[in-house]
Amino acid sequence: MIKPMNAKAPQQKSSPKMAKTAISPTRAENYNEWYQKIVRAADIAELSGVRGCQILKAWGYGTWEQMQRDLDRRFKETGHENYYFPLFIPLSYFEREAEHVDGFAKEMAVVTHHRLVKKDGKLVPDGELEEPLIIRPTSETIIGESMAKWIQSYRDLPLLLNQWANVVRWEMRPRILLRTAEFLWQEGHTAHETFDEAMVETKKMLEVYAAFCEEYLAIPVIKGEKIAAERFPGAVNTLCIEAMMQDGRALQAGTSHYLGHSFAKACNIQFQSRTGSLDYVQTTSWGASTRLLGALVMTHGDDNGMKMPPRIAPYQIVIIPILRDDSAKAEIMAYCEQLKADLLCETLDGQPVRVKIDAHDIQSSEKRWDWIKKGAPLILEIGQKDMDAGKVCVTRRDKLEDGKRFEERASFIGNVGLELAAIQQALYDAAAAFREARTVRDIKDWAAFDAYFSKDENSSFEGGQGFIRAKWCGDDTSLAKLDVLGVTVRCIPFDQDGKEGTCVLTGKPATMDVIFARAY
Amino acid sequence: MIKPMNAKAPQQKSSPKMAKTAISPTRAENYNEWYQKIVRAADIAELSGVRGCQILKAWGYGTWEQMQRDLDRRFKETGHENYYFPLFIPLSYFEREAEHVDGFAKEMAVVTHHRLVKKDGKLVPDGELEEPLIIRPTSETIIGESMAKWIQSYRDLPLLLNQWANVVRWEMRPRILLRTAEFLWQEGHTAHETFDEAMVETKKMLEVYAAFCEEYLAIPVIKGEKIAAERFPGAVNTLCIEAMMQDGRALQAGTSHYLGHSFAKACNIQFQSRTGSLDYVQTTSWGASTRLLGALVMTHGDDNGMKMPPRIAPYQIVIIPILRDDSAKAEIMAYCEQLKADLLCETLDGQPVRVKIDAHDIQSSEKRWDWIKKGAPLILEIGQKDMDAGKVCVTRRDKLEDGKRFEERASFIGNVGLELAAIQQALYDAAAAFREARTVRDIKDWAAFDAYFSKDENSSFEGGQGFIRAKWCGDDTSLAKLDVLGVTVRCIPFDQDGKEGTCVLTGKPATMDVIFARAY
Repeated sequence: MIKPMNAKAPQQKSSPKMAKTAISPTRAENYNEWYQKIVRAADIAELSGVRGCQILKAWGYGTWEQMQRDLDRRFKETGHENYYFPLFIPLSYFEREAEHVDGFAKEMAVVTHHRLVKKDGKLVPDGELEEPLIIRPTSETIIGESMAKWIQSYRDLPLLLNQWANVVRWEMRPRILLRTAEFLWQEGHTAHETFDEAMVETKKMLEVYAAFCEEYLAIPVIKGEKIAAERFPGAVNTLCIEAMMQDGRALQAGTSHYLGHSFAKACNIQFQSRTGSLDYVQTTSWGASTRLLGALVMTHGDDNGMKMPPRIAPYQIVIIPILRDDSAKAEIMAYCEQLKADLLCETLDGQPVRVKIDAHDIQSSEKRWDWIKKGAPLILEIGQKDMDAGKVCVTRRDKLEDGKRFEERASFIGNVGLELAAIQQALYDAAAAFREARTVRDIKDWAAFDAYFSKDENSSFEGGQGFIRAKWCGDDTSLAKLDVLGVTVRCIPFDQDGKEGTCVLTGKPATMDVIFARAY
Repeated sequence: MIKPMNAKAPQQKSSPKMAKTAISPTRAENYNEWYQKIVRAADIAELSGVRGCQILKAWGYGTWEQMQRDLDRRFKETGHENYYFPLFIPLSYFEREAEHVDGFAKEMAVVTHHRLVKKDGKLVPDGELEEPLIIRPTSETIIGESMAKWIQSYRDLPLLLNQWANVVRWEMRPRILLRTAEFLWQEGHTAHETFDEAMVETKKMLEVYAAFCEEYLAIPVIKGEKIAAERFPGAVNTLCIEAMMQDGRALQAGTSHYLGHSFAKACNIQFQSRTGSLDYVQTTSWGASTRLLGALVMTHGDDNGMKMPPRIAPYQIVIIPILRDDSAKAEIMAYCEQLKADLLCETLDGQPVRVKIDAHDIQSSEKRWDWIKKGAPLILEIGQKDMDAGKVCVTRRDKLEDGKRFEERASFIGNVGLELAAIQQALYDAAAAFREARTVRDIKDWAAFDAYFSKDENSSFEGGQGFIRAKWCGDDTSLAKLDVLGVTVRCIPFDQDGKEGTCVLTGKPATMDVIFARAY
């Protein structure tokens, strides 16, 4: 293992290239490789032997469980109920919505047989299906089929449902957590009487995602609307939240779609209205996925590993007993057990804090670095001396440069809820400051725009590109010149200044502000 | 809607054929049809348009969520961590374990293509995969692949993991909740240094399932071991819990497999032992699925619908405001909201009780019957008179024959935790009494055995067959005569009397007790 330099050296923070760090290469040396390394070192996930698929490991899946718990609470508080629909979509269902099928047909897993038989000593597919089945890339069409059966009258509306599921989109260039053939997500699907109600729902769920990202993941997001070219296939309007990663690229962290009558017509979802007429429902759908784990890493990771925001960390406090001397082992373990029991009485947001004792049979210094890499917010080491003095030795992950702190046991316990809240806030503030520093608002013409995004991409972590917030005229044909730069319009932010200006792409008059960036 | 007869009539309980009931046909009239009807009427699940697949609806999925929460707590308390592995298993992985592939190859979904293209105006599969992918029917082989990478030394053992996932087993004769092409489950997979440790784990997890079924689902189970012919493909030993349904058939409610070296050798999972030798690990696997929802229905349902055990009910108390008079609506709703708030301060097992106000815009009497059919343990109706008198009108689902009860609001709230616990116990006791009454212990020879299982199957609910507990000599060839009766050996129960007796199939001497039954 690479032993990081003693963390007291102040230059470690400002010049990662000079310090030995737990993750090599550093963000500045090679951002993409750093990302692969940290996902592995933090034991969040790994690519599997199955092409394009990943394995979520205990620390990664545990984080996803925390995300699920908080999102699920928010969905239920806004009146949604969980259902579960089939994994398989018959090809004919999928064909019903033309834009939808065009958008997804290129990247789907197709089931064509339902058994294997031995032929010449080799197992081969057998029992060909009459109609091929698609593994759901998203479930609008199959859920629409049920909605059509379940909805008869306005009394059956709104229908507000959600499912937690796996989906498959064949990916030619997989990237762990961010783009894999199979991933886990939730997809909300709702049906409404009126346009107004459906739009209220679409916006409400975007707000749910935004609040979750900012409050729980400590990731600041920009709320906005996608331009037509970037909409979900079949959507009339797609709302999104966009976050900035540490290489300045954007990552779409959640989407909420107003689907209008697209799927209602495709699936024939009609209802008898209050006036007796037979109308199509208005539908919405919205989703967030395990790619949020990738967003967490790219937002909060540093050159020593992950920093997990306390609200989402599977364990917020890890206790490492230092068991050098056999005679004191039992006593130290008992001290740690009592410490854990006392900590479990403390709370963050009214929930008991989550504590783990790591008594795994390896060197305690190695364990400390394992938990630093995983990003446990608070790491306690307890040896004979600490026990005798009634103290705890604390490493605060977000202030690693401060080194270890020795504190009275009682005082640490009494403040632990506040300290966890402070760490949560510090992570958010750092991410918000980073985004602010890398958002450019004074680029007004194409020459400056082109120059900004043409800078050497290798310097993407330190001083690299970020977001350009500028005016755009709304002409889709003007977007072609972005292709060579690999830049897209991320969103039309909800907060608009409404002022007249000049389109940064065409020089024409424009009032609309948009966010331009490279994206994951 | 069929209006059930006034529940005061005492004969409703003993002679379901004479009373009008919410579910038609009754259990006695046609058990299989009753089962389909009740699953639908209780809004638990329905078959989808996708062949052999089902949709779990809010009340069914909500029950599954409660099951997940309790099982997951038990798994974590016994040291397991959740992971997530790929949905797809490459054909070559699957071929590694001979018995395993023989057991599953006949019923698997096979992915052969990764995109669709338009040909003559029709979408057809395209992009054939070099190697077909199997949708996991179970994950021993794919998890074994990871275990082989992750385990190097005895220090990495035990490895205790679990995943919550969907699996697919192609079913030619689907039956809702019990046998569908896709279902949800959890599968635990563990690796150990020694035989002893692996056996302790195998038995421990069976005990976890048994405690969960008895304490949470109120389903009494028989713990035992499968005979060789009934083992999981690849297992050295399969432990199981068997429950009795109301037609006397057995339902396997959970299994725990000791896999020995089967998958360790197939997947090459080796470790350096404490003495330095390179050894194969011992593995186990264990699972429980959404078929438990079917078991719940078949254990606790009656001719008026489902009776959901309080510990597992998505809502334990449903409040129905009676809103006939427009002027009092707001006041009654406020009374109900306050009632709900006060109830939420009460607990069952230290958890706040789960309460729903059903203000859906339909007749309150219809709503009451909807919740009776769903099996909400306690149903409260609140109208003007109840509000004015400070009372609640209570329907206790497990004592429907007692009709409605009017009780002081404060007294109802103060006792609600105890009442829910009493309902839980009553459901368990009724199921245990049913099983006892339908378990036969005095059949000693084939003639009596044959006569018992040859009785008219249509009378399967009332006075039909059940379990025969008898001696068996252990000779597999003797099982052939069971085929015509559709009977199998369900398990060798852990509790054996050890006495010498006569094999009920062969007349030979035998000491082993087994359970014979028809099964789902």
